[in-house]
Amino acid sequence: MNADNTEYITRPGEVDGGLFGKDFLLTWEKNSEDLETILTIAEGLKMLRDRNISPRCFDSGLAISQFRDNSTRTRFSFASAANLLGLAVQDLDEGKSQIAHGETVRETAAMISFLSDIIGIRDDMFLGAGNAYMREVGAALDEACADGVLPQRPGIINLQCDIDHPTQSMADLLHLKTVFGSLENLKGKKIAMTWAYSPSYGKPLSVPQGIIGLMTRFGMQVDLAYPEGYGLIPEVVDLAGRQAIEHSGRFRVVNSMEDAFRDADIVYPKSWAPFHVMQQRTGLLRNNDHEGLKGLEKECLANNARFKNWECTEEKMKLTKEGKALYMHCLPADISGVSCKEGEVAATVFERYRIPLYKQAGFKPYIIAAIMLTNRFDDPERVLGNIKQRGRNRVL
Amino acid sequence: MNADNTEYITRPGEVDGGLFGKDFLLTWEKNSEDLETILTIAEGLKMLRDRNISPRCFDSGLAISQFRDNSTRTRFSFASAANLLGLAVQDLDEGKSQIAHGETVRETAAMISFLSDIIGIRDDMFLGAGNAYMREVGAALDEACADGVLPQRPGIINLQCDIDHPTQSMADLLHLKTVFGSLENLKGKKIAMTWAYSPSYGKPLSVPQGIIGLMTRFGMQVDLAYPEGYGLIPEVVDLAGRQAIEHSGRFRVVNSMEDAFRDADIVYPKSWAPFHVMQQRTGLLRNNDHEGLKGLEKECLANNARFKNWECTEEKMKLTKEGKALYMHCLPADISGVSCKEGEVAATVFERYRIPLYKQAGFKPYIIAAIMLTNRFDDPERVLGNIKQRGRNRVL
Amino acid sequence: MNADNTEYITRPGEVDGGLFGKDFLLTWEKNSEDLETILTIAEGLKMLRDRNISPRCFDSGLAISQFRDNSTRTRFSFASAANLLGLAVQDLDEGKSQIAHGETVRETAAMISFLSDIIGIRDDMFLGAGNAYMREVGAALDEACADGVLPQRPGIINLQCDIDHPTQSMADLLHLKTVFGSLENLKGKKIAMTWAYSPSYGKPLSVPQGIIGLMTRFGMQVDLAYPEGYGLIPEVVDLAGRQAIEHSGRFRVVNSMEDAFRDADIVYPKSWAPFHVMQQRTGLLRNNDHEGLKGLEKECLANNARFKNWECTEEKMKLTKEGKALYMHCLPADISGVSCKEGEVAATVFERYRIPLYKQAGFKPYIIAAIMLTNRFDDPERVLGNIKQRGRNRVL
Repeated sequence: MNADNTEYITRPGEVDGGLFGKDFLLTWEKNSEDLETILTIAEGLKMLRDRNISPRCFDSGLAISQFRDNSTRTRFSFASAANLLGLAVQDLDEGKSQIAHGETVRETAAMISFLSDIIGIRDDMFLGAGNAYMREVGAALDEACADGVLPQRPGIINLQCDIDHPTQSMADLLHLKTVFGSLENLKGKKIAMTWAYSPSYGKPLSVPQGIIGLMTRFGMQVDLAYPEGYGLIPEVVDLAGRQAIEHSGRFRVVNSMEDAFRDADIVYPKSWAPFHVMQQRTGLLRNNDHEGLKGLEKECLANNARFKNWECTEEKMKLTKEGKALYMHCLPADISGVSCKEGEVAATVFERYRIPLYKQAGFKPYIIAAIMLTNRFDDPERVLGNIKQRGRNRVL
Repeated sequence: MNADNTEYITRPGEVDGGLFGKDFLLTWEKNSEDLETILTIAEGLKMLRDRNISPRCFDSGLAISQFRDNSTRTRFSFASAANLLGLAVQDLDEGKSQIAHGETVRETAAMISFLSDIIGIRDDMFLGAGNAYMREVGAALDEACADGVLPQRPGIINLQCDIDHPTQSMADLLHLKTVFGSLENLKGKKIAMTWAYSPSYGKPLSVPQGIIGLMTRFGMQVDLAYPEGYGLIPEVVDLAGRQAIEHSGRFRVVNSMEDAFRDADIVYPKSWAPFHVMQQRTGLLRNNDHEGLKGLEKECLANNARFKNWECTEEKMKLTKEGKALYMHCLPADISGVSCKEGEVAATVFERYRIPLYKQAGFKPYIIAAIMLTNRFDDPERVLGNIKQRGRNRVL
Repeated sequence: MNADNTEYITRPGEVDGGLFGKDFLLTWEKNSEDLETILTIAEGLKMLRDRNISPRCFDSGLAISQFRDNSTRTRFSFASAANLLGLAVQDLDEGKSQIAHGETVRETAAMISFLSDIIGIRDDMFLGAGNAYMREVGAALDEACADGVLPQRPGIINLQCDIDHPTQSMADLLHLKTVFGSLENLKGKKIAMTWAYSPSYGKPLSVPQGIIGLMTRFGMQVDLAYPEGYGLIPEVVDLAGRQAIEHSGRFRVVNSMEDAFRDADIVYPKSWAPFHVMQQRTGLLRNNDHEGLKGLEKECLANNARFKNWECTEEKMKLTKEGKALYMHCLPADISGVSCKEGEVAATVFERYRIPLYKQAGFKPYIIAAIMLTNRFDDPERVLGNIKQRGRNRVL
C-alpha cells in the first residue's frame, strides 16, 4: 500500500487461471500454463500465415480500439491481429464521440459492445488510473452481460497501462523463446532491465514493470537497475521478488548499469520517469496545472541529465556474457546521434541488434491475435487444428 | 409553410412505399407495412447472430459514413450493422478531404460512390439543412446513376437530421414491440413525449419529432408536452395530429409534464431547444456570428432555468399508469446528480430503468442493418431464409 | 540536373519492366506492356464487379494508406480497391503515431508492414521529397525483407507525389482507351495539356507531369502549354520529348492556350504552380517560414492574375477538332462562377463534359485495384480467370 493509498496491483493469490472469456490485463494474473498457451498459439498463427493458410475464424465481428495515448506499433499490431482473425477494427475516438457529455464509463462500455468481440485499450498517462479504467470497463461489461443487455461479453486486452504492457512483454518473451530455443533454456539466464538516459521525460513505467513482472517467472536472474530515485511501483517490485523465489530464479535491484550488465545474457536498457514523479505528474495532469507540469518537466530533465552515463555503450556491452548479450528494446529507442544527441543507446550497438529488435517487434501482432483467440475459444489448439485442416488460402 | 418559407417536411400523400432501392430519410415517407418489415428483419438478424449464424450477404462493399456532428452510439451501430452484413466502413471526413475546395455536393456524392453500397449521414446542426442535404446527395446519386456514372445507386440512411432521427425512433419502436409483446398491443397505450430540463442548450429537435412522427401511426395516445415557447417544427406537429386521426389514436399538445405523465404507459422525457431558437441559431451559425451565438446561449440557458421542475422525478413517475410507466431515452441522458447537478431525470428513476434503456439502445445496430438489407434486396425475407439455410457460423 | 542538384526522376534506361513485387512509383519506370496489362486487369475487375462476381482474392490482409495531404477521390478509390480485393484499410495517421518521436523512416516502414500487403502513399507537398520518401520506404522494406524481418515485401503505390500522379494518369489513359475504342486509336491524336488560371496557388505539378510522361508513349501529339515562367520539372519535360520521338509521336511546349487547343482531340486545362515557385515554397515550408510563404503566395496570386484569360472557354473549345475535343480534368476543377469567380473552365464547358469527367474519375478505383493485383500475383490474368470460374457473388 502506498502513501496515497492507491493499490496498483491485484493482491497475490489472485492468479485466476484460464484465458477463455477472461480479460488480459496483467501477465501476473495468468498462470504459467496460460502464458505458454499464448506463446504456442502465437507461433501457430505465424506458421499458418507464413504458409499462406488463413487463420480467419470470424465471418464478421468488431475489435474496438481505444487509444488514449499515441501509438504506431501497437495500433498496427492490434489492427493486424484483428484482421488476421476476421474482425474489423472500429476506433473509439473520444473526441468524435459524446463521451465528453458526461456519459459514464458503464454506459459507454455497453453502448459500444452490442456486436463487439474484443476491446483493446491503451491508457498509460495517469498513474493509478489506466489499469483501473480497464477494470471499470470490464465490470460494466460483466454487469451488462448479466443483465441481458449484451448477448456476449467482449474480451478486454490491455494495450499498455500505467502498470503493465503485457502484449509487449509477451512479444518479448516469445522473442527470447525463439532466440534461446525454448522457455526451458531461459532458466538461469541473466536479464538486465535497466534505466537509461533519455532527453525526454514522463515515459511510462509499464515496460520495465512488465518485464520484471514476467521474466521472474521463468527461472531467470533478473536485475533491475536504476539511478537512486528512479524506482518503480513498489508492489510490482515486491511481486517480482516473490515470483523469482517461487520460480527458482533471482531478482535484484541495483543502482549501477555496469553491475546489471555484468555477465548478462540479455540487456533491456530503457528510460522511464521515477514512480514519485509519475505520481506528481498524475496530480498535475488531473488539475490541468500547465505551469506545474512545465516546472516538473524542467526539474526532471535536469535530474535526468545527471545520469547521461546511463547509456548502453559498446564498453558496457563488453561487460556482458562474452560481450554478446542480446540487446532488447520496445522501440522506438532514443539512439545517440540518430534520434537525439545523447540517448539510451549508442548507435553502433543499436545498429548491430537492429534486425533482432525488429523481429522482436514482429511478434506483437501474433501475440495479440493469440490473446484474442484464446479469449474467444475455449480450446484454441483444436481451433488451430481445424483451421489447418480447412487449409483455406489467405492469398488466392 | 413557415415564416422563413422553408418547408421542413415532404407534403402529405408523398408516402412512396417500398424500401428496395429507396433512401430511408423520414419514417413518415414509408408506409406502415414497410416499417413492420424493417422490424421483422431486424429481429431476424438479431436471432441469427444470437444463434451464431452469420448474416453476411456482401463479399465486399463499402458503407460510407459522414458524421457532421459527434456520435458514439449511432457511429458504433452503423459500423456494427455494416460489418454484420459484410460491408467495410469508410468514413468521409470533410476535414481530410478536398471538399473545402468548393467542390459541389453533386460531385462529391458521385466521387465517393463508385463502389459503395450504403451512405449513412448525420447532419443535425442546421435547421432546414440536414434533411435537405441528404436529399441533395440522393438527387446527385440518382443523376449519376441515370447518366451511367455509377453502376448502382447506393442507398442513403438518415443517421439523424434536423427533422427526424429514424434509426433511433425505429429502435425505440422495436423496443416497445418487444416490451409490450406486439405492435397490436401498442394500440391505446399512452406515450408522453415531453420536454425536460437540461443545463445544456441547442439539443436537436429530431428525437421528439421522430417519436411523435412515428408513434402516432400505431394507434397510440401520444402526448407532446413542453413549456410554452418550446415548440417543434409546426409541420411535424401537424403531421402527428393527422396520423393519429388516421390510425385511430390520439395526439395532444400540452404544457404540463404532469398532464402528459398522468396514466402514461410510456414516458420519454428529453430536452430540446425551441424551434424558433434553432431557427435563430441556424442563422447565427451560418454567419459564424460567435458573439450572437454566445448571447443566444446565455439567453436560452436563462430561459431553460425557469423550467428546472421539468424533471422526471419519482413523484412524477407515480402519476403514470400504476406508477410503472416504461421510461425511455435516446441516451446519453442528463441525470441529476450524476452527469449534471440538475437535469432531465432523477438518478433513482434512471437507475431503475437502466437495463431496459440499454436494451432499447441495443436494437439500433439491427435496425440499421435491416434498413441496409431492405435497401439492397427486394425480397429481404427470402434473403434471411437463404442465410439461415446456409447456416454459416459467425464465429468458427 | 537542376540548379539545386536535386535529381527529380530516375535516369532513362531504368525502365525495369515487370509489375509483380515491384512498386508503382512512376509510369515511365514501367514498360508499355506492363501498362497495358494494368488497363486490361482494371477492365476485367470492373466487368466482374458489374456482373456481381466478387474479385476478392485476399481472405485477410492490410492495405495501409498514408496521406500527407488531403484527399477525397484517391482516398475513396484506394479504400474501394482494397475492399474489392479483400484487404482492410489501415490509415497511418502520423499525428496519432510515435513518428514525431524522431523514429526513422526505416523503422516505421518495417513496423507497419509485418502483416501488410500494400502501402499507398500520398506525399506531394515538398518538391524533391515525395517520390524520394516513397523510395526510402521501399528501400527499408527491401532491407527488412532481406533481413528476414518481414515474411513478404508489401508493394508501394504512389497515390500522388511531387513528380507523378500515376493512378490519376493511368485512370485518364483508361478513360481515353474507352472513349476512343483502343490504345491503337490514340495514335496521332492531339492532346493539349495546358495550364489554366486558378485563384488558388501552390497546386502540385504531378498531374501535368504525369500526363506528358504517360501520353507521349502512345504515339499521341502532346502539346504542353503554359504562360512563360510556369514550367514543369525540366527532366520530366525532357523525358516527354524523348518518349514522343521513340513512340513516333510529337511533343511540343508552347506558350499559348489557343495554339495548344487548335485541332486538339483532347484538352486537359489545369492550374499548377511554376516549378521555380514550388522550389522556393519547399524551402519556405521546410523552414516553417510563415511570413515568407505569405509573401510568396501574394506574389504568385498577383502573377497568376495576369493570366486570367487562360480559361477553357466556349470560344477556345471551338478551336479544337470540329469544336468537339474531349475535355478532361482530374477534379475538383475551379469552375468560373461555380466554385470561384474566375477559374480554369467556363461553367458551360464543364457542365457539357461533366458526365465523361465523372466516368474518367470512376476508373481510378479499378486502376488502383489492378496495380494491387499485379503487384501481388505474377500471373494476374490467370487469377482473374480463376475468379471468374469461381463465380462467387459479391452481393448474395
